[in-house]
This record gives sequence, structure tokens and C-alpha cells, in this order.
Amino acid sequence: MRSFTQELGDLANKVSGEVVADEDLVSPYATDASGISSTPWAVLRVGTPRDVELAVRWAAPLGVPVVARGAGTGLAGECVPIAGGLVVDFSTMNRVLDVNKEDRLATVEPGVVNKWLNDELKTAGLFFPPNPGSWETSTIGGNISTNAAGPRSYKYGSTKNWVASVEVVTGRGETLRLGTKSRKSSSGLDLLHLIVGSEGTLGLITQATLRLSPVPERRLGVIVPISSIQQALQALLILGKTPSLEVSAIEFIDEVCVKCLNTYEGKKLPETGGALLMEVESTDEGFEKTMEHIYGTLSSIKLPAESLVDENVDSMWVTRGRVTYSLQRRYGPRHREDLAVPLSRFPDLVRGLREMLAPLDVEPVLFGHAGDGNIHLEFDHLKLGEAEFSNLRRRMYELAVSMGGTISGEHGIGVLKRGYMDIEHSKAELALMREIKAVFDPHNILNPGKDFC
Amino acid sequence: MRSFTQELGDLANKVSGEVVADEDLVSPYATDASGISSTPWAVLRVGTPRDVELAVRWAAPLGVPVVARGAGTGLAGECVPIAGGLVVDFSTMNRVLDVNKEDRLATVEPGVVNKWLNDELKTAGLFFPPNPGSWETSTIGGNISTNAAGPRSYKYGSTKNWVASVEVVTGRGETLRLGTKSRKSSSGLDLLHLIVGSEGTLGLITQATLRLSPVPERRLGVIVPISSIQQALQALLILGKTPSLEVSAIEFIDEVCVKCLNTYEGKKLPETGGALLMEVESTDEGFEKTMEHIYGTLSSIKLPAESLVDENVDSMWVTRGRVTYSLQRRYGPRHREDLAVPLSRFPDLVRGLREMLAPLDVEPVLFGHAGDGNIHLEFDHLKLGEAEFSNLRRRMYELAVSMGGTISGEHGIGVLKRGYMDIEHSKAELALMREIKAVFDPHNILNPGKDFC
Repeated sequence: MRSFTQELGDLANKVSGEVVADEDLVSPYATDASGISSTPWAVLRVGTPRDVELAVRWAAPLGVPVVARGAGTGLAGECVPIAGGLVVDFSTMNRVLDVNKEDRLATVEPGVVNKWLNDELKTAGLFFPPNPGSWETSTIGGNISTNAAGPRSYKYGSTKNWVASVEVVTGRGETLRLGTKSRKSSSGLDLLHLIVGSEGTLGLITQATLRLSPVPERRLGVIVPISSIQQALQALLILGKTPSLEVSAIEFIDEVCVKCLNTYEGKKLPETGGALLMEVESTDEGFEKTMEHIYGTLSSIKLPAESLVDENVDSMWVTRGRVTYSLQRRYGPRHREDLAVPLSRFPDLVRGLREMLAPLDVEPVLFGHAGDGNIHLEFDHLKLGEAEFSNLRRRMYELAVSMGGTISGEHGIGVLKRGYMDIEHSKAELALMREIKAVFDPHNILNPGKDFC
Repeated sequence: MRSFTQELGDLANKVSGEVVADEDLVSPYATDASGISSTPWAVLRVGTPRDVELAVRWAAPLGVPVVARGAGTGLAGECVPIAGGLVVDFSTMNRVLDVNKEDRLATVEPGVVNKWLNDELKTAGLFFPPNPGSWETSTIGGNISTNAAGPRSYKYGSTKNWVASVEVVTGRGETLRLGTKSRKSSSGLDLLHLIVGSEGTLGLITQATLRLSPVPERRLGVIVPISSIQQALQALLILGKTPSLEVSAIEFIDEVCVKCLNTYEGKKLPETGGALLMEVESTDEGFEKTMEHIYGTLSSIKLPAESLVDENVDSMWVTRGRVTYSLQRRYGPRHREDLAVPLSRFPDLVRGLREMLAPLDVEPVLFGHAGDGNIHLEFDHLKLGEAEFSNLRRRMYELAVSMGGTISGEHGIGVLKRGYMDIEHSKAELALMREIKAVFDPHNILNPGKDFC
């Protein structure tokens, strides 16, 4: 029998990209932003899409796991090779291949960073709307694979709304082009949306054509101090149905976040109990009217907005981005949750989570994409025993699902939530997912042990 | 061996709905708006969702085809039982079960007619955006199964954007709930979007939760005479990127449509060469500004809009709806196409189709959802031999696909385009679709001979 090193030599000879297996070269590929860790046996730094086909065909008869990786910013361990195997590093395939202004489409390689793409689109007056927290470093391939979202999903929806087509190498070693550049289609099964959010379990994305949106003429940031989550919901509902306000994002941070921002980041936010951070879009012409509407709407619900409207939305997003850093400085690394429920249940979810956590002395902090009913909850899980922690998670997920919600709004399942899929999905549904995987990946080599598998 | 009548008696005893097999009762179920015809062996008028499970479990061991039917308005034969079998009539399951204003969700039975739902939603200030030509009679179940679209998809997209979750009975006789009421989710494979547009080949929809949008305060209709398709594209591109105009639909009708409307419907449209019909949304407050913007934008591209802006959008849509009636009166029943391409290629598609058809003496007429690059082309196919017609279709579809387009923008594949799927989809992709079908429908009883099967 040939050794793995010999087999790997065969792969290295076939591909145009680089194959590495030295410990110091593969160890950086062991983990992602989840902190979950497992070292791969080898890494392929992709040269061309053809390399991916060759790698899958090489891996299939050997049963070597194949795990796609972009920037490694995933929060659920999606790109961690927990069964070992070959990590396919797409960060080397990072070109914007084409931008079509008239059709508002961009064709990109999967390793393009979200921010780079958006920088390049500026001259065309277009942008790719999904903006996960990691957008300055995460790749489009990763955004697609996790169906990433972010604050602006309140108006624009998740990544799935913005993918026109993908080129993907399945576990059969075949390259497929799925989807269409046309704005709509009713032809055959929608395999494209099966790939989006499938976390590399069905195929490896080697190219994507994305839909783009025109950049609004103005974007305003509004930071609104609030005194309770119920007041936040009231504001959310009124803002969401004010026809003259084009709200694109509504974020919530709790009183601990506000205090941490003030303490560690030198902000001077009123410590009333929390805050909403909103992005409002406007035309140049309608700008003053928009400002009036913001003031009017917020004062109609007795929220003190006047002094907090900021015409520079970027500075508001820098503040929002600083939330996690300031929490890190205050608490160090902790468990972070990503639950989403229908908007009307958001206060009930927050209340329910607080009640569960209050007796536990784990210093919970709540923030998230309130407009989407999506909460990111942080707490000190290290103060809990393993069974207690697992039991708590199960109760939290059951609460969200009982409200018609989901155990992951945008971070994905990966390794982190794999053991809890039964809460949201029936046995029959999970069985279908696994059989569909077997169709795409008959040798079961693509990202085993993730998501539903 | 037991007779089919005996077997059918078993089914009738099990279900709460009505089972009929008399020729005069089943013959109305033989066809739909495509004109394709094949009489079913029997019909189940569904009483409860449980009936559907019972019917599938009854049909599976017998190998009886099971074909879901809503209002029978499909244009591609989706609900025609071409292999015989049992038609499952959902028009009897037609209740709106719940409307949630805060979450903007409606839960409905599949037989609810699109218009009924929208009538019921008016008091809540909400609407279900997809508006196919058949919206006054077609059902939500049918809209979902064909991923129906319509004029307003220019702003709002196809049905797939507006389905939160479905309850579906697979060919295994299992009821699944797919999707979530949460606004976003990254949990597991997206089986929901696999069901949308699958034309009853994977499962029968027994309930759906739909996403809704707030009704705009004002909707204006604008009819703009144009002299060429190139001028239409120029208008489309400029209208689409005017930030102060919220255009929700842009329709195109050619000079023949205009003449037919004038002759048979008593309209008085200028016969300049065709027209664009647009729907523009506005707030009450911004209404006058919007009117100014429409005039300004159209005059900037030298289009004579002033006399044609109509504050009553409904009358414009009645005019648009009359296009097909007036063509019927002029020509009788003819072949109708449904191709879509990226917007920038729309004039090339129109030019290419005209060049193909010009030598054939088939009196082509062009109209459609121009803003989505979606053309409906009518012509007198009866003047062509069978092979000539089929060859022509192949060339038309190849043209659309070569431009990055699709062979069906919104009508679906059904029986009508089944023989042409290889033009848009690779062998490997079609093979995957069929294997996925086998996962959902191992006995191959659900709508056999349709779409990709």
C-alpha cells in the first residue's frame, strides 16, 4: 500500500496550485474564528478551478476529506477539518473577473474578500449588500457557503438573495454551472439555492456571479438610546412601517455593550439601558425630509433622537464593530449565540434568554440584528459544567424554535450546532438532507461532520 | 388482482375529501391554460392535509401517478396528468389561516387564490407581491409550484422571495415542514427553495407561510409610447437607476399589441411602434415630486410622457391585461413563449427573435416584462411543420441561453419545454435533479413526465 505522502505527491504533480503538508505550514489551517481546532493532513492552495476537480477526483477513491476554506472567519467551525484530510485554500483565487453595470452583476473567484469587491464596485455606483461582521476579511465563497447576512440584511436579505449563479465542483468531481444571469427563471430544480448555505458539504464553489444593488446617494447613521427591549420593539415596528423612511439596518446593543463602548472605546453614549443603531438611506434631494422624518418618528414614540443622528454612517458602523472588541477586553473569549425569531417574538426571546441565564452567574450580554429578530448573545460558558452548558443551549434553541425561529440566523451550523439540528429539523427532513448529500457526494468526502451530516 | 375501481374505493373510504372517477367529473381536469390534454383516472378533491398523505401512501405501492392541481391556469401543462393517474384538486382547500401584521406573514392553504389573499390583506395594509397574469384566478399553491412571477417582480422578484415556509407531503408519504418564519436562517440545506418551482415533482404543498410587503401609499401607472426596442432599453436603464423613482414594474408591448388594443379594446394609444407600461410607487407626501421626476426622466430621454401619466394604476393594468384578449380576437390561439435574458441583452434577444421569425410568415407579436428581460412572444405555430416548429424553438432557446438567459422566465417547464431542458442544463445537472427527485419520490409517482423528469 502506498503512503499518504506518496498519494499527496501524485496530487501535487497534477495541480497547478501548491500542495503543502509540513506541520508549520498546515497548522494555521487548523482553526477559524470559532476556536474549534483540528489540523489538516495537507493543504492545497488553489491555482485554477481545474485544481479543485483534480483534488476531488484524487480524494474520492482514497476517502480523504476535502474541506473548502476562504478567510477562516467562520464562527461555527465550518472550515475546520475535524476529520482531518485536505483543506482547499481559496484565498489564492481572489480576482474580480467581470463587473456588468447594466445588468448589475459581478463575476468573481471565491477567494475575493467582500470588502475588496465592494471597493472595486464603487466606481460603478454598485455594491454587494450582504455585510457580515467579518466583511472586511471574509471571502465571497465563505459568505455564500454560510448564507452570511449582517446588519444590512434588514433591507436586503441574506447572501442567498444576491447570488445569480455558481460554478461548483461536486463530490463526484464534476463541475456544474447552476443558476442564471437572468433576473428570474422557472426552469428545473433550484440547485443553486441548495448550494448556498450548504457549508461545503455538497460541492466546492470555484466561481460565482453575484447580483448587485445601486449605492444609495446617502446613508445616515442614527443611534437611539432606549430604556427597555419592549421600547426597542415598539421603535422597530414603527420605523419598519414608516413609508417615507428607507431603513436598511436596525441593530440592538444592551446596556452592558453601551458601558463597554464608553469604558474601553471612549464613546459617550447615554447609559439608559441600551441603544438601537440604525442605517437610513436617502436621496441627496430627499435628505432634509429624511432627517425630519427620523426626528418626527422617534419623537412620536418619545425616543430622544435629536442629538444622535450622525450623517456619517461609517462612524456608526465603526462604533458597532467595536462592540465585540470592547466585550473581549472586558470579558475575554466567551460563547456567542446566533438565534433568530420572527420580529414580534424578539422581546419574548430576549426576556426568555435573560430568565434562563440570570440564575447562572455567567454575565450575559445581548446584541444583534434586531430588525431581523436575530440576537447575538454572549456569556461566560466556562463557568458552567459541560452537561449544564449543553443543556442550557438546548433550552435556548428550543425556545427560539418554539417561537417559529431558527438555531442559526447567519453564522451557520458547522461543528458548533451540529448536535442540536434535531430541535429545528425533523428526522424526516434531516434524512432527506443526508440523502441529497449522498447524491452530490457519493464518497462522503466533502466537509464530513458538519451542518446536517 | 383487484381492479382500479376497487383500489379507488379504498382511497375514498380513507379520505375526508371526495374521490370521483366518472368521466364527466374527471374530464374538466384533463387540461390547463396550455391546451395540452390528458384525462386523469380519478380526482381527489382534498378535504384535509391528511388526505394528501393518505393519497400518496395509497398511490405509491400501486404506482399511480399523483398530480397536484390548483386553478389549472398553468401555461406549460404542469398540472395535466399526461401519464394518467390521480389529480389532487386543492381548490377545495382555500382558507387564509392566519395573518400576522407585525411579522408580515400570512399562513394559507394552497388553494387560496392570489387575488382573494390580496383582498383579505388590504385591511392589514399588506400585500403578497407576485402578480402573474393569472393572479385573479391562480392559486398560491400553483404560484409556488411554478415559482410564478409577473410585472411587479421587477421590484419584488419571483414567488421564491416571498415563501417563508411550506408544509409538503413527499412521495414517501411523509409530511415535512420546511423553512422558517424568521426573516433569515443559516441552518441546514435549503429544502424550501428546492420545493418552490419544482412543479409538484418532489411533493404536494398542503400549507404555506408567505412573506408580505406593506402596500405603497400610491401607485401610478405610466404608459410611454416608444419608437424602437433600443429606445425602450435606454428608457429601462435610465428609469432603473433614477434613485428618486421607485419603479416596481416595466412592461413592454410592441406595435401590434398597441394596434390590437386600439382596434379591439377601444384604446387610443399612439401607434408609434410600441409602448412601455410602468408602475411607480410613491408616498402620499412625495407624490408631486414623483410626478415631476417621471416627467423629467422621460423628457430627458426625449420620450413624450406628459399626457400619459395615469394616477390610477389599476386602469393601466386592465389595459395591459387586455393585450392577450385583443391578440386572441385578432389571431385566435397561438404558441406563446416565455424567455428571459439579462437586461442588457434584451434588445439583442428581441432583434434575434424577429430575424428568426421574419422569413416564416407566422405574424409574431412581442410583449413582456421588459424590466426583467422577460419576453412573451406569440406567433402562429400552425403555419409551421412539426419539425420546423421544434427546430425553431430549439434555436430560440439556444439564443436566450447563449445570452446568459433561461428558457422559462416564469411559466415553468411542465410538458411544453421538457424536451428542451438540455439547452439550459448540462447532463450532469439534469442527472442530479433526477436523483434528487428519487430521494423525495422513490416510487416516481409525483407528476411524472414534467419539468426535468
